[in-house]
Amino acid sequence: MNLEIERKYRVTDRSYRTGATRCTYYKQGYLSTNPAATVRIRIAGGQAFITVKGTTTGCSRQEYEYPIPVADAAAMLDGLCQSGLIEKKRYLYPYAGHTWEVDEFMGDNEGLVVAEVELQSESESIALPPFIGREVTGDSRYYNSNLAKTPYRDWVEKE
Amino acid sequence: MNLEIERKYRVTDRSYRTGATRCTYYKQGYLSTNPAATVRIRIAGGQAFITVKGTTTGCSRQEYEYPIPVADAAAMLDGLCQSGLIEKKRYLYPYAGHTWEVDEFMGDNEGLVVAEVELQSESESIALPPFIGREVTGDSRYYNSNLAKTPYRDWVEKE
Repeated sequence: MNLEIERKYRVTDRSYRTGATRCTYYKQGYLSTNPAATVRIRIAGGQAFITVKGTTTGCSRQEYEYPIPVADAAAMLDGLCQSGLIEKKRYLYPYAGHTWEVDEFMGDNEGLVVAEVELQSESESIALPPFIGREVTGDSRYYNSNLAKTPYRDWVEKE
Repeated sequence: MNLEIERKYRVTDRSYRTGATRCTYYKQGYLSTNPAATVRIRIAGGQAFITVKGTTTGCSRQEYEYPIPVADAAAMLDGLCQSGLIEKKRYLYPYAGHTWEVDEFMGDNEGLVVAEVELQSESESIALPPFIGREVTGDSRYYNSNLAKTPYRDWVEKE
């Protein structure tokens, strides 16, 4: 089990693309979008995982992740993930001692770009890269499990 | 991925205990009881698994199972499995070329005993041991995911 502590922000421009050390295509779906325990299937960079996440408390969340065969993941994404699938490109952007993950969503979530940074503790201070906008940590609309059900395209208020 | 093909029966007496080759204590719970994709956490015989099962069609069902650390499973059973937990003893009973699994439920499902046999094909013929009663294959009340939510104790009609 990991305790995932992270902060999440909207992104104001695409300058992260310059300086990003990696860009990986992610495809994922949800076997459960119940907030008490989401169960995610993800394929990324030729690997696949099943991931269980608990409820978010503050900016912490229990997380359990296990590698699984890509063929199993593909079959589950096709056949068992009920709500929509999430497709995104994830850029890794190192900045002032932290590695930011910048997710450029595609498909029904096209236009949404979100940056996350993982912390060692809830009180850890971080320097924000220039493309960082409004903080959205804890805003459940931005949970990928909710973006699968209510994609950005359907949001009334997009800012 | 396995395609699980099985038939399930009520059990009329405890004679399976004589002749059983193994008895293992199972504790399990569900991260999702959605029939389209149940997600089960199980601890049994010092091992733990996360298991995804799809919808039952006839007596077949897609199944994906992966070993996980017992400590993770214990934490998920305690903290993330929303509905009730299932506890049972499983006896293995070899009979006429098949190995039957006889589940003696405990706790809120005390009194319920169910036997399952796995088949190679839906049309395979099987010999029934003497303790086998009524067939309940496909009766969703007997799914362990449903017994976690609506245990045998709460059934109005128990036969």
